Amino acid sequence: MRYAVLGGGKRVRPLLAFAAGELARAPTERIDAAACAVELIHAYSLVHDDLPCMDNDVLRRGKPTVHVEFDEATAILVGDSLQALAFEMLATGRLADDASTQLEMLRAAAVASGTRGMAGGQAIDLASIGQVLTLPELEFMHILKTGALIRAAVTLGARCGSALSAEEFGHLDRYAKCVGLAFQVIDDVLDAEAPTATLGKTAGKDAARGKPTYVSVIGLGRARELARALRRDAHAAVEGFGARAERLRDLADFIVLREF
Amino acid sequence: MRYAVLGGGKRVRPLLAFAAGELARAPTERIDAAACAVELIHAYSLVHDDLPCMDNDVLRRGKPTVHVEFDEATAILVGDSLQALAFEMLATGRLADDASTQLEMLRAAAVASGTRGMAGGQAIDLASIGQVLTLPELEFMHILKTGALIRAAVTLGARCGSALSAEEFGHLDRYAKCVGLAFQVIDDVLDAEAPTATLGKTAGKDAARGKPTYVSVIGLGRARELARALRRDAHAAVEGFGARAERLRDLADFIVLREF
Repeated sequence: MRYAVLGGGKRVRPLLAFAAGELARAPTERIDAAACAVELIHAYSLVHDDLPCMDNDVLRRGKPTVHVEFDEATAILVGDSLQALAFEMLATGRLADDASTQLEMLRAAAVASGTRGMAGGQAIDLASIGQVLTLPELEFMHILKTGALIRAAVTLGARCGSALSAEEFGHLDRYAKCVGLAFQVIDDVLDAEAPTATLGKTAGKDAARGKPTYVSVIGLGRARELARALRRDAHAAVEGFGARAERLRDLADFIVLREF
Repeated sequence: MRYAVLGGGKRVRPLLAFAAGELARAPTERIDAAACAVELIHAYSLVHDDLPCMDNDVLRRGKPTVHVEFDEATAILVGDSLQALAFEMLATGRLADDASTQLEMLRAAAVASGTRGMAGGQAIDLASIGQVLTLPELEFMHILKTGALIRAAVTLGARCGSALSAEEFGHLDRYAKCVGLAFQVIDDVLDAEAPTATLGKTAGKDAARGKPTYVSVIGLGRARELARALRRDAHAAVEGFGARAERLRDLADFIVLREF
């Protein structure tokens, strides 16, 4: 579990949780727990997705994947235990002003992880190998597979505090949807363009397996254009927060301009 | 997910949750959600445990296991999604008199599922293949692997209501520990004695794989004796509840006297 979680990574979800939490004037130790729980869910999904019967990847964050370094049974149990640990963290201590809000946070994390989120998206992803998808179908898959947990990171961070009105929360959620989708568009662009050494994971993997990607569905140029539009939309969504949303804007920039 | 959950099984954990919940005078719809969540966690663990890299079993409840009926990737995602769904259920609606108690229930379920519970026990189980364990080592493994979730079933059921004093809750928890251990002792006895057709799963599997069991560590006679002693202890633990504990006593009897 340590190998899977502490081996680096961009930590985009925790960063988003912190940026949203600070906007909601949440105490740092609350955001810390929520951010950590979301990252544990993300880390578990990578361990399971890399398994031979799933994406069959041997390299992650520049190191052998968990099932290569240990074995497949360990990788399955590591993922299972990380998911349980994430929910344990969300249920331990006080993460919101009241316990009901904390239950809502837990529910949001569970929904974002299950069939209507990450796991459902991965199931569609595996079923799409060798298929031709339309842009809306591809977007639907990614809204579940990557978008849901990124959105949950922002939601959970914000719910740790109480400074946001329902309207402000709505703006923040729109921001989260935009960066969630932009994240995946850029992932596909990098998978097609960047070398393995820079990515820390096997490049060109999706195309080689016949997986539909933004690049295969709309082409490299339009994919980059889409990411730029989503970045603009993300900025626009949090415009009303002024200087308080600086970190959120920086993260939208990082997600779209990153090279790994 | 339907195939994995709705294909029968003894439903021992839900039955225990209901018996404990009724003792605590909990509303049925609350116990229903808690009992269902615990059964979903149990069902997910069976799907993952049956995988080729784990216990490699092809038969469960008289039917092909999930990875045989579908494929391995589906089995992994089914298990992952069932775990998420369990926590979603525990975080949805009102399952206890107050939200803080519900968070405690969620935490108990998460701890019982992770490294200090079911998944940790399964990891020890896999690491024990071909090893000689002492009785305390074997008990430690089973307290985690099977005992923790059975205990959580009783705890969660009871927490749905509020009629129990701390002392009464202690008695109930002692009952849960006894039936949890008795369940595994009898599982090992049946694995050694009962035919596959009766069990609905491959018999003699543990011995064939060189897994330490109660039968291999202390022998068939002493294993049966241990189960009888645990049944007596379980009865004794809930003696003070009188007629109200009839279902709990019946379940202890069922767990020890069952033939499948």
